[in-house]
Amino acid sequence: MTKRNLYLSNTPIDAARAQYLAALEGIALPQYEELPVIETLGRVTEKAVYARYSSPLFNASAMDGVAVISERTKDARETAPVDLKRGEDFLIVDTGDPVRHPFDAVIMAEDIVEVDEDTVRIFASAHPWQHVRPVGEDIVAGEMILPSRHRIRPIDIGVLLSAGILKLSVTKKPTVAIFPTGTEIIEPTETPKEGDIIESNSRMFEGMVTEYGGIPHRFPPTPDVYEEIREKIAAAVKTHDMVIVNAGSSAGTEDFTVHVLRELGEVVVHGVAVKPGKPVILAVVEGKPVIGLPGYPVSAYIAFENFVKPVLAKLTNAVESEPVLQQAVISRRMVSSLKHREYVRVKLGQVDGRLVAAPLARGAGAAMSLVRADGFCILEQNVEGVEAGETVPVQLYRSEEEIRNTLVAVGSHDMILDVIADQLPCRFRGMFLSSTHVGSMGGLMALRRGEAHIAPTHLLDEETGIYNIAYIKQLFPDEPMVLVKGVHRIQGIIVKKGNPLNIRSVKDLTRVRYVNRQRGAGTRVLLDYKLRQEGIDPADIQGYDREAATHMAVAALVQGDSADAGMGILSAARAMDLDFVEVGPEEYDFALRERDLELPQMKAFLAILCSSEFRQTLREMGGYGFEQTGEVIRL
Amino acid sequence: MTKRNLYLSNTPIDAARAQYLAALEGIALPQYEELPVIETLGRVTEKAVYARYSSPLFNASAMDGVAVISERTKDARETAPVDLKRGEDFLIVDTGDPVRHPFDAVIMAEDIVEVDEDTVRIFASAHPWQHVRPVGEDIVAGEMILPSRHRIRPIDIGVLLSAGILKLSVTKKPTVAIFPTGTEIIEPTETPKEGDIIESNSRMFEGMVTEYGGIPHRFPPTPDVYEEIREKIAAAVKTHDMVIVNAGSSAGTEDFTVHVLRELGEVVVHGVAVKPGKPVILAVVEGKPVIGLPGYPVSAYIAFENFVKPVLAKLTNAVESEPVLQQAVISRRMVSSLKHREYVRVKLGQVDGRLVAAPLARGAGAAMSLVRADGFCILEQNVEGVEAGETVPVQLYRSEEEIRNTLVAVGSHDMILDVIADQLPCRFRGMFLSSTHVGSMGGLMALRRGEAHIAPTHLLDEETGIYNIAYIKQLFPDEPMVLVKGVHRIQGIIVKKGNPLNIRSVKDLTRVRYVNRQRGAGTRVLLDYKLRQEGIDPADIQGYDREAATHMAVAALVQGDSADAGMGILSAARAMDLDFVEVGPEEYDFALRERDLELPQMKAFLAILCSSEFRQTLREMGGYGFEQTGEVIRL
Repeated sequence: MTKRNLYLSNTPIDAARAQYLAALEGIALPQYEELPVIETLGRVTEKAVYARYSSPLFNASAMDGVAVISERTKDARETAPVDLKRGEDFLIVDTGDPVRHPFDAVIMAEDIVEVDEDTVRIFASAHPWQHVRPVGEDIVAGEMILPSRHRIRPIDIGVLLSAGILKLSVTKKPTVAIFPTGTEIIEPTETPKEGDIIESNSRMFEGMVTEYGGIPHRFPPTPDVYEEIREKIAAAVKTHDMVIVNAGSSAGTEDFTVHVLRELGEVVVHGVAVKPGKPVILAVVEGKPVIGLPGYPVSAYIAFENFVKPVLAKLTNAVESEPVLQQAVISRRMVSSLKHREYVRVKLGQVDGRLVAAPLARGAGAAMSLVRADGFCILEQNVEGVEAGETVPVQLYRSEEEIRNTLVAVGSHDMILDVIADQLPCRFRGMFLSSTHVGSMGGLMALRRGEAHIAPTHLLDEETGIYNIAYIKQLFPDEPMVLVKGVHRIQGIIVKKGNPLNIRSVKDLTRVRYVNRQRGAGTRVLLDYKLRQEGIDPADIQGYDREAATHMAVAALVQGDSADAGMGILSAARAMDLDFVEVGPEEYDFALRERDLELPQMKAFLAILCSSEFRQTLREMGGYGFEQTGEVIRL
Repeated sequence: MTKRNLYLSNTPIDAARAQYLAALEGIALPQYEELPVIETLGRVTEKAVYARYSSPLFNASAMDGVAVISERTKDARETAPVDLKRGEDFLIVDTGDPVRHPFDAVIMAEDIVEVDEDTVRIFASAHPWQHVRPVGEDIVAGEMILPSRHRIRPIDIGVLLSAGILKLSVTKKPTVAIFPTGTEIIEPTETPKEGDIIESNSRMFEGMVTEYGGIPHRFPPTPDVYEEIREKIAAAVKTHDMVIVNAGSSAGTEDFTVHVLRELGEVVVHGVAVKPGKPVILAVVEGKPVIGLPGYPVSAYIAFENFVKPVLAKLTNAVESEPVLQQAVISRRMVSSLKHREYVRVKLGQVDGRLVAAPLARGAGAAMSLVRADGFCILEQNVEGVEAGETVPVQLYRSEEEIRNTLVAVGSHDMILDVIADQLPCRFRGMFLSSTHVGSMGGLMALRRGEAHIAPTHLLDEETGIYNIAYIKQLFPDEPMVLVKGVHRIQGIIVKKGNPLNIRSVKDLTRVRYVNRQRGAGTRVLLDYKLRQEGIDPADIQGYDREAATHMAVAALVQGDSADAGMGILSAARAMDLDFVEVGPEEYDFALRERDLELPQMKAFLAILCSSEFRQTLREMGGYGFEQTGEVIRL
């Protein structure tokens, strides 16, 4: 086994950024270029811009009508009109036409009467400069139009051109070289093989560099060969304003990056007290910022936001605004460490006037948690954790308006939630469904704590054989509740294609590798019920304690030969082309408070649930029945 | 005189938009195209996207270390270590390497001891699946990754590629033809002539179309020839998704657009109850939206935001969010009309915990007011006006944070305010100066009402000959105030180049066309003082009642031969290359409350005022003295 490089520092995140920006002081400076004004949208001015000409450039008529000499109109009134002669007393003008000395006022077309070709009659005097836009009324030659470091907007382009400015010195877009590294990584493909790791981080960086005003230049993956990485970085700092090296920033076997950067230049920080994102490298090579980002996508994203973005802001002269933090109630206990600041991805919703945050997967590899997140909850370095119901600072990724119009579902997972989330905003503009999957019982508890509008649930009452109602009545004894009937679906055992282990019923689970669902999941309740019926001890099932969070996760483990069987629904088995041993039908419904039936997003949800488009989509997926769908049962 | 087309409707703005969008229902639909995923940043998905592969694609090691069979480690403990054989009991793995059956757990490199080449010793058991990322932990094949109508972000690109999605159907960018029209308009030039109107609106539209996700295609200006305009629009609707015609939308002589559109298609609305922006035309030609925008830049901007933007949102599937409105205290009385909704541009500042809005120029031609605006104050159609101090809804154009860090100056204008506004954010990141020009007395009144942090003022006390102090003491008898000394500057009479009318002193003003400053302006106070000294009756000065708002505006009127003379400062005369007849020096200072010396933005302001860079810039402009600059006098 080879030498490992275990000695990362644990610099607090704000200190690391400050240290790095200080090291770049006087080095990473914006470049400027002169461009035609019409090509400067979004760029930032180098210097203050002064008007070359006034606008209007001359005294101009503000109306269609006649330009007059005000002095000659002073006796006109309703009872004593005055006639004016063309050329001598008046000139016809349209809006924008010059009004030249001795003419000094304009009378609107509506207020004159044509006597003949060359004569008009007026019934009121015109006071000097009426309906005349004086020269410079809008822009005065010599005045400052835009300050330095101003980001050009469309309106600025209009005004610059009006003021005679046709060219402008603005920040040049910085070029950023992006190097994915790693011997095992491959370019994205539609046919990956086991052991392949698809390189996708660099494509995310390309997008982020573009959004932050730079020009990304992504290189093909470089294998973990010291010399090769060194040569590429050494060449890139000569041709680019900044370099990003991806992966190879931790302390693993083949993590050369930090050694390469120490050889080529100065490593300012290696290792930051942030989770995910710790193994970041902040370096300077030949006066250029070079940043090593971690390999896991979430770590890479957080490190990019915290370290690459501020450097790009420096290079583009962008005004970096502090992220807006809101206070939210956290729906689950979270243990954190005093060793780092943690960014936890959360789903957000406005329930009963409170902003509620439900934590998503916390792993550094959970890229989908970033896709699904509405924001980040920040656990500071000096915080050991937070209890459910505590208030935490959250950085929003969606507008407050969107969050207000979102129906928050917490509970059991079914793919129909994805279908509704997809169809809802198409039919009801600006309305959204957000769902978090914590199992049926977890959903009802969240509903009780006021952290959800609706709880998808499929809990069988063993005594009555009726789904859901008993559980709701027990948990909400004093509140008017409603059960909206959802779908009938088939539960069964998900097994490998062809069912090679010949699994026929829950009895067979004792002889295979099983994967279970988490405690409180309706599917686990059903399994336990069936096991009791058959008199089987859960301890006899290998993998009974191994938990997956959704039907799809169970199916994936079976498909990946990580388990032989798991309970789940037909549509999950079908989605992954697996076989399915039917156990029985069940009822997947929605629990909510009666008063919440009136929420606009709830009405939209129910409308989708009852729509023919929704049923059509589910028929194509298979395994669902609609006997009672949309029925509202008041409890 | 030709027939005029005076009959615009006055449709309320929201009704007009709803009517037009209804007319476009089923017509203006988004188009889609399939693109490589890496080119889809900012586009919107057509359909929901499902993962093709799981990620990880296989059970993968989450650590560098050894993969083991957990069963064979179960007896290991600190006091009874277990030795494992390579190939048989363990395999060396790096993070991301596959963990294949029968291996089902990973032990970290740190926790093992190498015995020999093929043997490792462990001191604790490994529970099944420890440090293994199960297949599908992040993304499960078949699960919905993105819903329909989702705007692609960088992170989405990463996840799509990881899930095996390489191509994606997304909204095509709509193409928008932009036709500037008007016989008198010319392309932007550095050498315009009197009567020329520089065409700049179309360039602003280009930028706005780009920002809202379309592809602008701007045509050269078309003269006001009916046939020509008709042919161009008829051709453009065949090749573009939308057409914008600029100017020619009001009811003037040469305003053909509405007639052309009536001939070619259907005019849904002509004339909207909005100010500025009334003469808008909303039409449909051959199933394409065609919008006629007004000619004045502010009208054009407001009509674009209200009518073009929603259509572009429809064509791009963008989620249009409602503008965020804040409540602000208005600093000046504003009379409005029941006939329309008015958008008043305002400067904003946070003073004493209140958001204060100071109205800017209200004319439709005042493009600079849009450049300078921090937001719009909206006066609804059913509101007759608001009194100073009333609360009004304001739509912000800058972040609340920027507004909080802005020093609000209200009072007399001097170009040094522009210089400070320019230099302040360069040296103090995130700090800004906002200044509104209402004259010295107006500024002191605003300071008293709590609408400004600082009032630039130059008011001469005739009795003592001392500037500013007496006025502040009189207006703030009970408050600890401070006067920060600004600059000494030269007041005088701004006259044409070469002084053709031979103006030597204020006595000569009785025989020329004068332009005055507004009541309460220090310059006007000075003139009145000089007139009294000379025994001149203001009524004898032609133009005494004609008011311009700044030194630069006075200079522009003299330069444009709209006046022969006006009082002002040397730097204004120099900026416009005019002559200057010195009247005398004066002191331009800053009044503020003592406690506001502690505001961070005030400290930044004072630091700039005392900086050598600031003085250097002013020396280059000329006409300023720094004998007392930065001196703080407590009153």
